[in-house]
Amino acid sequence: MSNRKVALEGSGRHCHVTRETLDILFGKGFELEVKNYLSQPGQFATPQRVTVVGPRKSVDLMIIGPCRIGDQVELSFTDARTLGFDPPPPIRDSGDLAGSPGCKLIGPKGEVDTKEGVIIAKRHLHMTLEDGEKFGISDGQIVKIKVDGERAIVFDEVLARVKSNAATYAHFDYDEFNAAAISYDNCVGEIVD
Amino acid sequence: MSNRKVALEGSGRHCHVTRETLDILFGKGFELEVKNYLSQPGQFATPQRVTVVGPRKSVDLMIIGPCRIGDQVELSFTDARTLGFDPPPPIRDSGDLAGSPGCKLIGPKGEVDTKEGVIIAKRHLHMTLEDGEKFGISDGQIVKIKVDGERAIVFDEVLARVKSNAATYAHFDYDEFNAAAISYDNCVGEIVD
Repeated sequence: MSNRKVALEGSGRHCHVTRETLDILFGKGFELEVKNYLSQPGQFATPQRVTVVGPRKSVDLMIIGPCRIGDQVELSFTDARTLGFDPPPPIRDSGDLAGSPGCKLIGPKGEVDTKEGVIIAKRHLHMTLEDGEKFGISDGQIVKIKVDGERAIVFDEVLARVKSNAATYAHFDYDEFNAAAISYDNCVGEIVD
Repeated sequence: MSNRKVALEGSGRHCHVTRETLDILFGKGFELEVKNYLSQPGQFATPQRVTVVGPRKSVDLMIIGPCRIGDQVELSFTDARTLGFDPPPPIRDSGDLAGSPGCKLIGPKGEVDTKEGVIIAKRHLHMTLEDGEKFGISDGQIVKIKVDGERAIVFDEVLARVKSNAATYAHFDYDEFNAAAISYDNCVGEIVD
């Protein structure tokens, strides 16, 4: 238990789209391009951006590839307030979209009105099976992560996602990063009891 | 120790100005108007707004009265990034402004270039002398405040400001409120060890 350190990553607002939605937004058969690979195996940032139309304002954001089985827009509370979602979208694990609000997505070739999929991401800890075993953490468990520094904090309600196809990183949005003053010089946390 | 509950308040971006700065921004002898009184005795929201010019963008924000002995602009990290302060302003207690960046303030009658005063407010706990004694907390002490809920969190590094002229409330900015999903339905925390 002496070393339960974990790397922290901040997720800005972004979206995931289905194959069907990508066809409409960017044209039939369009393939997402790889701008750079992200920490989670197979996931990549793209240069493809869409406009998300909220009740009050719109904002451009990045599509993260590859395509998924549901359209999903991930915002922070700050983003959601700016866009005019009131009440704010629910705090959800990725893919758990039932009952969340929808929005209009606008791409260069067309637009789609989603019936759901706008969420505030639940903070989570991606973890390999090996690290899960080492740290005694199982998939779906709720853990706490402590961050030191000028805005030292203990984040409770961090959802562990322990999978074979993972890399061990804790993911937060920028409201959370800012609340803990996490920066590139200070992006390590510790799993605590 | 069984009940160490404390009310939480969110502070949006705002500024405090000196008498001299108010004269320049709004005209000689101008008096700040009271929009509504705030929780701390004598402090009030005003309808007077100024434009804060950052390195990249500008934003309007409210003056909180009465006048103080230093011009002070309080931003969140989110605000600071939007305005283009890079590196971000330091995290400081109110009034501790040495070495913080300055900015241009624009009012209806004039403008002022401050040489310092832009800060990220250090989260803090205003407390009456009576509550300080009851809770065993002294002025200047660093305490922890736990917030329950979907984004349960323990805020460390909360500066206690125990004064005779105070009301007991913990103050956070909206990055911090958002990170803990604090809302009007959930604005109570607990001082923990």
